[in-house]
Amino acid sequence: FSVGTGQRFLGFAVSSRHFSASSLALGKALVYSEYGAPERVLELKEQPSESVSSGKVLVKMLGATINPADINMIQGTYGSSSLPAVAGNEGVGVIEDPGTSKLKKGDWVIPTKPGFGTWRTEFTASSDELLVVPNDIPMEYAAGISSNPCTAFRLLSDFGNLKEGDVVIQNAANSAVGQCVTQIAKSRGIKVINVIRSREDKELKALKKKMSDYGAENIVTEEELAGPSSDTFKGLPKPKLAINSVGGSSATNIAKRLDQGGHMVTIGGMSRKPILVPTGAMIFKDLTFEGFWMTRWILNSSSNDRMEMINEIAKLIKDKKLKLWYETVPLESYQESIKRSMEQRKDCKLVFKF
Amino acid sequence: FSVGTGQRFLGFAVSSRHFSASSLALGKALVYSEYGAPERVLELKEQPSESVSSGKVLVKMLGATINPADINMIQGTYGSSSLPAVAGNEGVGVIEDPGTSKLKKGDWVIPTKPGFGTWRTEFTASSDELLVVPNDIPMEYAAGISSNPCTAFRLLSDFGNLKEGDVVIQNAANSAVGQCVTQIAKSRGIKVINVIRSREDKELKALKKKMSDYGAENIVTEEELAGPSSDTFKGLPKPKLAINSVGGSSATNIAKRLDQGGHMVTIGGMSRKPILVPTGAMIFKDLTFEGFWMTRWILNSSSNDRMEMINEIAKLIKDKKLKLWYETVPLESYQESIKRSMEQRKDCKLVFKF
Repeated sequence: FSVGTGQRFLGFAVSSRHFSASSLALGKALVYSEYGAPERVLELKEQPSESVSSGKVLVKMLGATINPADINMIQGTYGSSSLPAVAGNEGVGVIEDPGTSKLKKGDWVIPTKPGFGTWRTEFTASSDELLVVPNDIPMEYAAGISSNPCTAFRLLSDFGNLKEGDVVIQNAANSAVGQCVTQIAKSRGIKVINVIRSREDKELKALKKKMSDYGAENIVTEEELAGPSSDTFKGLPKPKLAINSVGGSSATNIAKRLDQGGHMVTIGGMSRKPILVPTGAMIFKDLTFEGFWMTRWILNSSSNDRMEMINEIAKLIKDKKLKLWYETVPLESYQESIKRSMEQRKDCKLVFKF
Repeated sequence: FSVGTGQRFLGFAVSSRHFSASSLALGKALVYSEYGAPERVLELKEQPSESVSSGKVLVKMLGATINPADINMIQGTYGSSSLPAVAGNEGVGVIEDPGTSKLKKGDWVIPTKPGFGTWRTEFTASSDELLVVPNDIPMEYAAGISSNPCTAFRLLSDFGNLKEGDVVIQNAANSAVGQCVTQIAKSRGIKVINVIRSREDKELKALKKKMSDYGAENIVTEEELAGPSSDTFKGLPKPKLAINSVGGSSATNIAKRLDQGGHMVTIGGMSRKPILVPTGAMIFKDLTFEGFWMTRWILNSSSNDRMEMINEIAKLIKDKKLKLWYETVPLESYQESIKRSMEQRKDCKLVFKF
């Protein structure tokens, strides 16, 4: 998750769970005591045992995704933490001991808030810090459900007033969020124009094939979109929504395609270049430009709204209408896995399996 | 009204009233038969007499403003007209013969829609093309009420969810709209940070004096705003709304001042440079960027909503809470008056008086 400005975003309530060593070692946790390069500051530490005290539950983690935001938090460029902290924001665990709560042993849970510290084998928490998720989907999908699929779900639900038959245009269409946008849109009868970066012929062909396999249509490179062959999407209505993860000229090019009154929502700035908006487009085409940050949505919404969304997404997963690429890796290989997750071209998401 | 892109905006329903010469000459009209420089294409023609046929009323024009949009329409860069057309979009007339309508002789009226052709001494129209305005305010204010004061009124009513005690920041603060924003905001207990271009000391002092006279506070030059002395507005909350008529770095500088969740609304692009938005600000500060075009609002709103707004504005005028600078000029001097209205620094609005 690059933000395009290089600015450090402080003061927001994304604080990682404290870590303090004590008593009997039962599990392990990836901990950082200072901000910096993950390979330097992360340490795999033995985690102290915690007893299930009044109102608390014991959770054994099943899996936790490696997301760019996790890396940026360790680097100290995204949110603020009290140090030392356990890394990781997303993941799924199973209730081992429900204590006196309403939860049941075997329930699958995810943290209600970001910054929880999910890269550890177990923890205790109060039940209101946890949200129950369906346990009849693959573990990897449950571990990764709260960031990419939920972001795509909200983009398609909250922006541009979309209904069946409408069109969305997105850049970085092959990103994890892009894959979710394509498939969730399809389930709602919304068409997507998928813009990807150009690459070598063979690689491009393979990518288009992969994208077609999960249902992507109207796949076009940045260059084709900017070029004169602009009648590629003849027959499709003009997009009501543009989803921008890139910024710079890519953002301008998708904004240009928007219909009168259209919205562009920005979720990232991979090009590290700002968005450039011609005044006339704003005034006469009535375009609106805004941002979306999943973290803010989570902090501002009820767990009921969140549960409803997650159940809808889980249903798509069970119905094979939402397919994503996950690879599980052991916690011990974290150096190698984090390095891989930071590489430019990532076809699948890495998930720590505990 | 510069739009920053130089683009021609066609296809919008801003069509000027046709002009066809016939019968007895009773009045005069400024007519253009082709697009181009106003001094070249405008002709002062004798206007044919029209009888008040069924359902029509006869209106004698009292005054009509010269606005940048009028010029741009004649140049063919703003809206489209059927040619030949009578120029002018805004103005006030008096009902001379109400025919069978509910209007009364002596009522003051303005056109309900833009592109009416107001630079003429008289016309007939159906009563639903006209909106009654208070006739106990100065003629110049009534002539100019529908563009600048209404724009300011809508900006402060429809964007940024403003309430008493909130802060707005605007560039081009000494423009006609800017003057209205300052005064209407004051009447609502909203504070304004007024950003103006720097100029020679003496001239700057005179401008600040003039602005203070109509109640402007927190006056700052672009350079002061961009500079390090950024604690000028200590004690004021951060702005919830930025009003941008300039674009380029000026837009960036006022956007930077916005509070979390703030809105920037663009109504012009005098610098002819686009708006540059850092991705991070959009995502993490939750900023929204949009445009406002008074013409669209008028076309999308009921005459009831419009009447209500105009009555509120007229009350501010009567209460001396909204003061503007008008100068009346005769229709015959149109060449000179249009030239003056196109000059960069215009302290007062010119109004044709009939």
